[in-house]
Amino acid sequence: MALEPAVGIAGATGLVGNEMLVVLEQLDVRCKILRLFASKDSVGELYSFFGDEVEVEELNDDSFEGLDFVLFATSAELSEKYVPLAVEAGAVAIDNSSHFRMHENVPLVVPEVNIEAVTAEDKIIANPNCSTIQLVPLLKVIDELAGLKRVVVSTYQSVSGAGKAALDELWAQTRAVFTQQEMPHDVFHNQIAFNCIPQIDILQDDGYTREEHKIINESRKILSLPDLKITATAVRVPVFHSHAESVNVETREPLTPQVLIESLEKRDCFDVYPDFHEYPMQLGVTGSDSIHVGRIRRDLSVANGLDMWIVADNIRKGAALNAVQILKALIEREVFG
Amino acid sequence: MALEPAVGIAGATGLVGNEMLVVLEQLDVRCKILRLFASKDSVGELYSFFGDEVEVEELNDDSFEGLDFVLFATSAELSEKYVPLAVEAGAVAIDNSSHFRMHENVPLVVPEVNIEAVTAEDKIIANPNCSTIQLVPLLKVIDELAGLKRVVVSTYQSVSGAGKAALDELWAQTRAVFTQQEMPHDVFHNQIAFNCIPQIDILQDDGYTREEHKIINESRKILSLPDLKITATAVRVPVFHSHAESVNVETREPLTPQVLIESLEKRDCFDVYPDFHEYPMQLGVTGSDSIHVGRIRRDLSVANGLDMWIVADNIRKGAALNAVQILKALIEREVFG
Repeated sequence: MALEPAVGIAGATGLVGNEMLVVLEQLDVRCKILRLFASKDSVGELYSFFGDEVEVEELNDDSFEGLDFVLFATSAELSEKYVPLAVEAGAVAIDNSSHFRMHENVPLVVPEVNIEAVTAEDKIIANPNCSTIQLVPLLKVIDELAGLKRVVVSTYQSVSGAGKAALDELWAQTRAVFTQQEMPHDVFHNQIAFNCIPQIDILQDDGYTREEHKIINESRKILSLPDLKITATAVRVPVFHSHAESVNVETREPLTPQVLIESLEKRDCFDVYPDFHEYPMQLGVTGSDSIHVGRIRRDLSVANGLDMWIVADNIRKGAALNAVQILKALIEREVFG
Repeated sequence: MALEPAVGIAGATGLVGNEMLVVLEQLDVRCKILRLFASKDSVGELYSFFGDEVEVEELNDDSFEGLDFVLFATSAELSEKYVPLAVEAGAVAIDNSSHFRMHENVPLVVPEVNIEAVTAEDKIIANPNCSTIQLVPLLKVIDELAGLKRVVVSTYQSVSGAGKAALDELWAQTRAVFTQQEMPHDVFHNQIAFNCIPQIDILQDDGYTREEHKIINESRKILSLPDLKITATAVRVPVFHSHAESVNVETREPLTPQVLIESLEKRDCFDVYPDFHEYPMQLGVTGSDSIHVGRIRRDLSVANGLDMWIVADNIRKGAALNAVQILKALIEREVFG
């Protein structure tokens, strides 16, 4: 029988943190200790884990003593402060924030793509951005089949990527359109109800947003293709859950939709739509663990190219599931105890 | 003083037909006769035109006698039948349907791009698809400045492109989410409320939708670039009005955002957002006559490329305004009477 680790979740009451708890149970990750950390406001809240009640504790400097792994579903600022404390206390930290992702000595991991990047020496492992996680497994398969030449991505991202308050705000703004009441603007500067906002995260001096930089730079790092030609436009759409992406890929060698479809179907992480009359949509994939790949067709504008439409649950595969998959892989290696 | 033409609008009570009437007045297109045609159901409805009341008549085979121009805002099926009858009766037909657009002898016109394609011999002039109309003026400017090499477009199209009933359906479906009532599905096969649907118009055997073919083929025809390398993914988003497009362009020669911005600013049809902190959105541009171009930035994945975000009112610039602009140009040429 495998050893059972002592695990903590920091930011356990947010959308991603709470989903991490759910996924731990669903993936049958038994823990000898499971502790939940959040801000003062949530202290005392009770969560169920394999039938036990677990009480939320306040996250503080001394939280991590005796833990083997800590899953961080915290902001970049909180991760910057607390991840090193977890490591000092002897834990391995799996961090969902953006803070450590591009650090040279921190592996950035999508298990289906590069779990081998994690060595026994690594004490911090970064979980990529949600829109990157659903993209790179597809790019990896295409690269192996035909060599990636260039990638152009446009995203259709749900509000859940901006947290619980964003779900409430889409709901409240939509209701305000019907009732002609004043519209809340606590999360989104612009109206998101019945509107698309072509800005996610802050704008950078080169005209890209930080979200677009994440897609570009994290994809390069995860795929170990530092010169990958890739550009992205990231757009928030008035949808509650799951992200969709319109993905255009040029390849070095010819690649037919049929060959790609057969290759994707062999891998667990994809749900493929081989009949082009069917395609994934955000409503249908929410709660699913797969990356849904549809509308796979030849790009008629280049010798070797494909257009695709990919959809995944950004809180599950795009965040919580990916982190728990990393944790599970490390437990199986028994890199603790 | 210019001659005043006799003008008819077929399909006058739909979203586009009604907007044609509004735009005729706003652009001060005086008509010695103005007649409105629709199906039996709308007969007798009254519309105002320069202070006069105009009563809707039933569209029939004999509707067009004595008219100089007929604007068609009808389905492809109705246009196929009635446009030739209008021409037989001596009128010039400006048709918003898809039926004649790719006919070899029918000019397909966006006035800012190719009004010179219309000769005195042309009796049928086709108005392009809404998502094409807002794209080609931008492509034309870029082609003149630096030569188009390849274009990748992903669209974010509002429901108004599917007509009045689609507006009602987004409204009713959204309300049904709140009230947990049964959801109407008269227009959209899939739920559009809080969802994106990656299919507009019917799917073709090559995996593209007809909407995507329209963007590709109509752009080539309007720009007189039959070999233009262009691919498109067309997506319906839960927004009432206006279409947005994420546009990636590779050029043959270098082209900086600054040079493009200055060039666009010189032309009337664009509203440019030179400060990258500001950008157009669907909510803000509805009712506007301009093509709004924002988020103009270098595509870092190629030697010569740009990423952009363009938004326009699909019923105005994408349909009614474009048709009336064509009409106005022909009146100024006095190609009637």
